[in-house]
Amino acid sequence: MKRWPEMTLAGGPVQATERTLRDMARPILYHYDPVFIELFDRASTLLKTVYRTKYDVVILQGEAILGLEATAAGLLSPGDKVLNLVSGVFGKWFELFIEKYGGETVELRVPYNEAIDPEAVRKKLKATPGIRFLSVVHSETPSATVNPVAEIGKIAKEFGVLTLVDTVSGLGGEALSPEEWGIDVAIAGPQKCLGGPPGLSLLAISPEAWKAMESKKNPLRGSFLSILDWKDTWLEKKVFPYTPSVTTMYGLESVLAQAVEEGVERMAARHGAIARACRRGVEALGLKLWAAREEIAGPVVTGVVVPEGIEDRALRGHLRERYGIMISGGYGELSGKLFRLGHMGMAARPAYLCAQLAMLERTLKDLGRDVHLGSGVGAALESLSGWSF
Amino acid sequence: MKRWPEMTLAGGPVQATERTLRDMARPILYHYDPVFIELFDRASTLLKTVYRTKYDVVILQGEAILGLEATAAGLLSPGDKVLNLVSGVFGKWFELFIEKYGGETVELRVPYNEAIDPEAVRKKLKATPGIRFLSVVHSETPSATVNPVAEIGKIAKEFGVLTLVDTVSGLGGEALSPEEWGIDVAIAGPQKCLGGPPGLSLLAISPEAWKAMESKKNPLRGSFLSILDWKDTWLEKKVFPYTPSVTTMYGLESVLAQAVEEGVERMAARHGAIARACRRGVEALGLKLWAAREEIAGPVVTGVVVPEGIEDRALRGHLRERYGIMISGGYGELSGKLFRLGHMGMAARPAYLCAQLAMLERTLKDLGRDVHLGSGVGAALESLSGWSF
Amino acid sequence: MKRWPEMTLAGGPVQATERTLRDMARPILYHYDPVFIELFDRASTLLKTVYRTKYDVVILQGEAILGLEATAAGLLSPGDKVLNLVSGVFGKWFELFIEKYGGETVELRVPYNEAIDPEAVRKKLKATPGIRFLSVVHSETPSATVNPVAEIGKIAKEFGVLTLVDTVSGLGGEALSPEEWGIDVAIAGPQKCLGGPPGLSLLAISPEAWKAMESKKNPLRGSFLSILDWKDTWLEKKVFPYTPSVTTMYGLESVLAQAVEEGVERMAARHGAIARACRRGVEALGLKLWAAREEIAGPVVTGVVVPEGIEDRALRGHLRERYGIMISGGYGELSGKLFRLGHMGMAARPAYLCAQLAMLERTLKDLGRDVHLGSGVGAALESLSGWSF
Amino acid sequence: MKRWPEMTLAGGPVQATERTLRDMARPILYHYDPVFIELFDRASTLLKTVYRTKYDVVILQGEAILGLEATAAGLLSPGDKVLNLVSGVFGKWFELFIEKYGGETVELRVPYNEAIDPEAVRKKLKATPGIRFLSVVHSETPSATVNPVAEIGKIAKEFGVLTLVDTVSGLGGEALSPEEWGIDVAIAGPQKCLGGPPGLSLLAISPEAWKAMESKKNPLRGSFLSILDWKDTWLEKKVFPYTPSVTTMYGLESVLAQAVEEGVERMAARHGAIARACRRGVEALGLKLWAAREEIAGPVVTGVVVPEGIEDRALRGHLRERYGIMISGGYGELSGKLFRLGHMGMAARPAYLCAQLAMLERTLKDLGRDVHLGSGVGAALESLSGWSF
Repeated sequence: MKRWPEMTLAGGPVQATERTLRDMARPILYHYDPVFIELFDRASTLLKTVYRTKYDVVILQGEAILGLEATAAGLLSPGDKVLNLVSGVFGKWFELFIEKYGGETVELRVPYNEAIDPEAVRKKLKATPGIRFLSVVHSETPSATVNPVAEIGKIAKEFGVLTLVDTVSGLGGEALSPEEWGIDVAIAGPQKCLGGPPGLSLLAISPEAWKAMESKKNPLRGSFLSILDWKDTWLEKKVFPYTPSVTTMYGLESVLAQAVEEGVERMAARHGAIARACRRGVEALGLKLWAAREEIAGPVVTGVVVPEGIEDRALRGHLRERYGIMISGGYGELSGKLFRLGHMGMAARPAYLCAQLAMLERTLKDLGRDVHLGSGVGAALESLSGWSF
Repeated sequence: MKRWPEMTLAGGPVQATERTLRDMARPILYHYDPVFIELFDRASTLLKTVYRTKYDVVILQGEAILGLEATAAGLLSPGDKVLNLVSGVFGKWFELFIEKYGGETVELRVPYNEAIDPEAVRKKLKATPGIRFLSVVHSETPSATVNPVAEIGKIAKEFGVLTLVDTVSGLGGEALSPEEWGIDVAIAGPQKCLGGPPGLSLLAISPEAWKAMESKKNPLRGSFLSILDWKDTWLEKKVFPYTPSVTTMYGLESVLAQAVEEGVERMAARHGAIARACRRGVEALGLKLWAAREEIAGPVVTGVVVPEGIEDRALRGHLRERYGIMISGGYGELSGKLFRLGHMGMAARPAYLCAQLAMLERTLKDLGRDVHLGSGVGAALESLSGWSF
Repeated sequence: MKRWPEMTLAGGPVQATERTLRDMARPILYHYDPVFIELFDRASTLLKTVYRTKYDVVILQGEAILGLEATAAGLLSPGDKVLNLVSGVFGKWFELFIEKYGGETVELRVPYNEAIDPEAVRKKLKATPGIRFLSVVHSETPSATVNPVAEIGKIAKEFGVLTLVDTVSGLGGEALSPEEWGIDVAIAGPQKCLGGPPGLSLLAISPEAWKAMESKKNPLRGSFLSILDWKDTWLEKKVFPYTPSVTTMYGLESVLAQAVEEGVERMAARHGAIARACRRGVEALGLKLWAAREEIAGPVVTGVVVPEGIEDRALRGHLRERYGIMISGGYGELSGKLFRLGHMGMAARPAYLCAQLAMLERTLKDLGRDVHLGSGVGAALESLSGWSF
Repeated sequence: MKRWPEMTLAGGPVQATERTLRDMARPILYHYDPVFIELFDRASTLLKTVYRTKYDVVILQGEAILGLEATAAGLLSPGDKVLNLVSGVFGKWFELFIEKYGGETVELRVPYNEAIDPEAVRKKLKATPGIRFLSVVHSETPSATVNPVAEIGKIAKEFGVLTLVDTVSGLGGEALSPEEWGIDVAIAGPQKCLGGPPGLSLLAISPEAWKAMESKKNPLRGSFLSILDWKDTWLEKKVFPYTPSVTTMYGLESVLAQAVEEGVERMAARHGAIARACRRGVEALGLKLWAAREEIAGPVVTGVVVPEGIEDRALRGHLRERYGIMISGGYGELSGKLFRLGHMGMAARPAYLCAQLAMLERTLKDLGRDVHLGSGVGAALESLSGWSF
């Protein structure tokens, strides 16, 4: 068998704490065992704390893409106009779900190293009557950028538009709140900033979103894609529509508890500080950040333009094979253009960041690039002055 | 927090071996880490061995109900006639998927303590022209019965009908084989006889089934419900359509390896011997088996008619609260009519069976029923004469 | 590799809860890490609660036999008279330590299926001037009997004799207290009723015992056998005399926490009730208990006379190989004369007891003995009427 | 509870691989369970491979200091002359055991940042008739230095002197061999280069050493300190003198298997390369290595002179509290004079070394020292050119 990596510092899933791993080794329970019911309930309550919300939360039992598809499938009716904000691969992909479920896409698009300008959203909404939904990716992981969802959501509210937010890798990286940010459906994943196992979609749903789902002509029920099924069963009767993923739920409950122990705001600030230090390190190495501007660079991964003369796959393969560090490449149409240094969850700490930058330096040099060894780490360390997390 | 059960002897999920639990505590990997690719590949190969098949296998990343819905969604076109064999709650439920995806149901139904007669299937197929698919539940867990799928599948083949088999709790309990039994799509779960975590659908797919999916007018692609997406990605290119459930896959790989080490035939025989002993124990206690006949009683759970004067929930609650044994009740319309003693996976061994029967005896007596204590265990022990697994 | 047992129901070590196992997988810490210091401290405090004592406790980093030897080595001076009460193999063995460290043994001995009579102790103390120490085994595991230490200790106190008690398998099985029982040095192990890993000696030490150690001519210091080293280091300065067994300490802390959560008295009562039920089951099978009288039969293992016509090793081997149940045989000079059914820790619960008795029944029958199958379990179940732990 | 460290990079115990941690969560077995016997046997065989020896190995069930004391206790007779080579705290401490067990110490001592010169040993042996044993510490962990045991052992052989070697932290860091190096008793620990749990002494014993133990006037038997007890029981009859530390043995078996999979020579070379890189990093930071010369600096920890103006405890406390890195201070009389960067086991890899150096840099700067951030990491990276482990 191949050698396991020393550190998984990718775009998610990322390495989990040993506490999380041990918690996933808890005995498998029958889903109607009182202990499991209690645990599922506690996970739901913790999730509300992490989302800083009083809205209902729903934990769909499939990876976050299920939550995205379920949102489109549950809300859209044929002909619904959806303003889809596109600043990256994931934003663009949501269009497929819009159209699969009969919606009509109105696109507002920026280059994939840029972020959406809230004023452009306002202009578009003004200019395009009849828009019912707005969809946007909060943390555009493949581009390592973030969109200003708090401002966008408020504008959408002015226009009475329901806001659907892919915050799969955003939750925990920023201290969001559906109510404050004007989000009607938020979809997050446990395998990013929370450092949990993939396999679940974490949804927060506004009363308006529930109403929209229920008032559809044929509300989506009786399907793995149905969010309403969970309202009818778990939320109202504490029963399940089908068998939940017991072990993955153990992981979720564990990472949510850890997040609440740390404090959501503190956790977000920690991610921000590490991302900043990472950027300083990358720049000091003479590499170019993918994000067009500092303000839009994301707190969970840092995108780096693949430098001339080096092949992306070779770089990542070398890091993994020789130094045991797993990072991520570009995705979809960005493939080969950037690589991504992950700093989520437990890895958003100085020791892991410096390990990653150091191995990147060594790798660049191994591959023939002129590197002043230690300069990336040094700049990151400089930026970490005053670290207190 | 409530006390964890001593033993989970339910209708699934069931208790896992300590090896399985430890394997699920393996570090979370990025899904494109070479070690994870290797592990996913190995799990697929092991799954073929357990299915005793050369057909393609697909591991959908959601609980078995996803596999059932995906099968209907991927194969049925509006107007397709489906002969749905109903011998229990799960068989009946499949009708919902048939109709959600435009199929037309032709039902062949028997009482829920009975099994389908293959000859009746032949007669029905003869009498009803234009049937394209046949759907049947192999192990009808809520009724604790099995249908003779091997014979049914062969008959279906005679008529050129594609056979869709829910063997969620069947795989491992009997030594099936899609090729030998005439199955075109088999759907199993890891959380039953294999003793793994819930959260996956294990599919075996015949070439004819692939062809049927691909030749639909609008083949289902770009959806969490799509089986074809896995053909286009994993099977053909070793990439994933979305992030798989890493930890749950660790569990699957582990239980499949354990099954192959034991041997599939041997494992099935072990389940059969324990189920037989369980029935002898139940009868000796003066209780009535739910299954109408010995030959159709299932190897994975034993259904017992709730005896007069005892309330089902009280019985199960007492067993769980006082003796730490978690069993299952009836399901859906069978709720309150029977309770189910699980004997799957690691629990399909004499020590666990006797512990379960003993605690059932004590519970019945605690609840006021006249029981000759030890008689159930004694009859089971008698039946276990010659045990050699 | 050989197959792991289903259940370890031996004379100790015994099977651990899954919580205990997970806790032992905590990351290995440097022993001066603040988290480890905190954990060692917490374990010490919990140990006092479990011992129901205000005396100092010392956790020697070697299996309980280390604690026994260290007690002799630390207290005895050449010529010291020690009244050694012998009711079994372990009691007799302590004589070796007495003599190795220069003591002079005065023996009070009963047959190995009997217990010491407190009045005989009083008589012996009266008749033998100059006795300085009294040594006694509380729970004589190889004989599955207990001595009335509470009464013996009080008598020793009357005579100003220091009492050294081997309660390796006693702690947790009865709710003892050094102060109330008149014990000066108690030595217990984590691998018996507490259900932890072997590898530690758990000592409670009276002020008088400390004084005796310190006032020896050459107090034992600077040795793995030294108890005083722990007073000089850990108790007084929170440093260690050498590197403690980190992982084993994790196990100890875990099982102590679990014992305190359950409650020591409740835990002891639970062991008592299960032992009683076990004896009823054994008798109903026509087997003979090893203990001469009900009152002296121990709460942690049940000794059973090997029945005529059956070879002890064959019986235990069959149970282990065929049914996955590991029990214990006789020990030392009792080898081949009795076998022992363990019911300690998590196994001291009805489900495990009945599993064990059932497999014993089946084994006896497999080996040719005439057994009314179910009768042992039945009698145990009868005895468990009103179980409420 | 305090926060767990991110990385334990101390002088041992050190952090374990996740595989090791999981293996220690294996169910606790009765020590006479066939699976445990098999595992203990396998561990013994693996230990021989790691020791590269055909000598008997003995696994004493207590931390390495037990092995050291047992060696003195088992071999020395009153009046025996022992040439004790002292190049550090641990070497000096062995004198206590020599004298406790009646030996007469002949000391050859060098400053604690130096190593023993083999020629000085030869001279001493020539000049001092009647020396029976020579004792030496291979890897003097508190000084982070190594002695040239291979040469010393050969000289001792010339003089017919039995050589006792404390290689507690040496095994795995260099590819030693008792036969080739002329060692009669080697004592190692699992918690250093092997990355296992503390709590065991790993001994390799030459036929001459056995003979010396057995031919003593009163061979040491019947004691926790006895090595001969293990010869009489485990080596000859596959029984145990007392209950072994089951969980710790799981850890040992696991780390030995991992070492053999990597290859002992390769593992040693890896430790050497990392130690070298560490020294280059330390020097680049303007810090002074404790070891007087490059050739005697050890492969498992790097000792660094505490720089003026910085308090050792403050430095280590800051590293641990703020950056989650646990390192070690000086020990005994070296306390406060040096601190030690550990790089043993899984931590002997570039990513962990660079993380450690980076956090050290940041800490030095936080505490007011002028540091060119990144320079230490840079020099280490330079040294790691061509890394291929």
